[in-house]
Amino acid sequence: MINKITIIGVGLIGGSLAKALKSNNLANIVFGFGRDQNRLEAATKEGIINQYSTDLKIAVDGADIVVIATPVGSFESLLHDLKPLITQHMIVTDVGSTKSSIANSAKNILDEMLSNFIPAHPIAGKEKSGFEASDAGLFLNKKVIITPLDTNLPESINTIKKMWEDVGANVDFMSSESHDELLGMTSHLPHMLAFSLVNYLVSQNPSASIYAAGGFKDFSRIASGDAVMWSDICLNNKAQIIKHIKNYQKTLDSLVSFIDNENNDKLEAFFVNAKKTRDSWIG
Amino acid sequence: MINKITIIGVGLIGGSLAKALKSNNLANIVFGFGRDQNRLEAATKEGIINQYSTDLKIAVDGADIVVIATPVGSFESLLHDLKPLITQHMIVTDVGSTKSSIANSAKNILDEMLSNFIPAHPIAGKEKSGFEASDAGLFLNKKVIITPLDTNLPESINTIKKMWEDVGANVDFMSSESHDELLGMTSHLPHMLAFSLVNYLVSQNPSASIYAAGGFKDFSRIASGDAVMWSDICLNNKAQIIKHIKNYQKTLDSLVSFIDNENNDKLEAFFVNAKKTRDSWIG
Repeated sequence: MINKITIIGVGLIGGSLAKALKSNNLANIVFGFGRDQNRLEAATKEGIINQYSTDLKIAVDGADIVVIATPVGSFESLLHDLKPLITQHMIVTDVGSTKSSIANSAKNILDEMLSNFIPAHPIAGKEKSGFEASDAGLFLNKKVIITPLDTNLPESINTIKKMWEDVGANVDFMSSESHDELLGMTSHLPHMLAFSLVNYLVSQNPSASIYAAGGFKDFSRIASGDAVMWSDICLNNKAQIIKHIKNYQKTLDSLVSFIDNENNDKLEAFFVNAKKTRDSWIG
Repeated sequence: MINKITIIGVGLIGGSLAKALKSNNLANIVFGFGRDQNRLEAATKEGIINQYSTDLKIAVDGADIVVIATPVGSFESLLHDLKPLITQHMIVTDVGSTKSSIANSAKNILDEMLSNFIPAHPIAGKEKSGFEASDAGLFLNKKVIITPLDTNLPESINTIKKMWEDVGANVDFMSSESHDELLGMTSHLPHMLAFSLVNYLVSQNPSASIYAAGGFKDFSRIASGDAVMWSDICLNNKAQIIKHIKNYQKTLDSLVSFIDNENNDKLEAFFVNAKKTRDSWIG
């Protein structure tokens, strides 16, 4: 059992991990850190965390595990603040949606404490943010990708792997580059498409949604994600996201040419392929 | 009350209308027409239709209303077959997802019976097709757009308006051109994006979906639509769909430039605008 785990950023993911740890009786003390005392007080009253502090030194003091669950853009300054507070047996991990830029920041900042930092990313989310939307079951049967650094100790990696498995997730390992390529495609690209679709529609017709069928509601759900988080993701996975948007546009160009040439066979094959793929992926 | 209504094509939409008419006790006889006797027999056994025939003459004989609910690509040959069977007080309507090409076909084919044809489009659907997926509540609080022809009698238009209102829909009127422009944007474009996304992902990585979060499932739901129906829609709303895909790509180009220039302010504004719009549209 974990004695003390400190969650830096008690939002949707941090709050859900806190709830999952507590409801599975996996930690004695779930300690929250954040900038806003009122929010931390509210999260404590709701039983999401046991204690909190807005002082990072107090928050991580004696922690076995520190989980960074703030937007990726805050990592550099956080790692600077954390560095002098990391002790020999303390494991620091994160839940950031991009991994290469985080690994680079950690390498530049953490020096001799680098081996204590295990980068990780639970692939789970909701369109709502804040601990009010947190859910102890958020990670059940979800993937968590750990992207270990060369200097990480196997025991430290296993501690983080076990924590995620204990809250119901399945853990995979890959390089930070592979992670960013893959997530750039399966998560960042669809979000960029959804945000762009909503902006395109409203620019054309402010009341377009009146005539949108049910599919639009589902399709655009992910266009309600947090703006700061998504700006951070774009800036931290810039090359991959741009690459995937541009390559996706080539697929759109093919589709346009099939329509323009009235190529019924190619159109049907295009739609059949998508339907077969989607059905096999979801089923 | 309608005495006899004939549904041409007892699939998702035709079957749902049949069910809705029967469950609201709006028609004495809901008569099905199709090519496949086994399917019609099954729909009759399930109580979706009262009677059926694979002979169009028998199917529409004495009908007050004939609803064409087959893919848009079948309209021309159907209208040719229907023309000699349309009687003075028979109203023919449809549920096609495109309206300009249908109006043109009707004008070219129906001659002196043109005024009996009231083009309409219920904006409702599911990713599943076939009468097995049909649902008496499919049209509740959904929009139905009627795109009247110049020669339509007000009484005929009102009959179709009332039928849709009686099964729970809200009816709007617009020109077929406005309809195709609007639906090209709110329905056809999102479907094209979803089909393209799934095809792009599988072309890059056949097991990409393993690492896709919940958003992807929602986003790609509409990529399970019927391939023949969507080919028909593309060919029948070609100009609008191509226009909207190309203009949408300009929105993607802007987003790429914000990311490439690491313009955090523009990125955040882009995401905030989408989130605000989506939340206001759905809420």
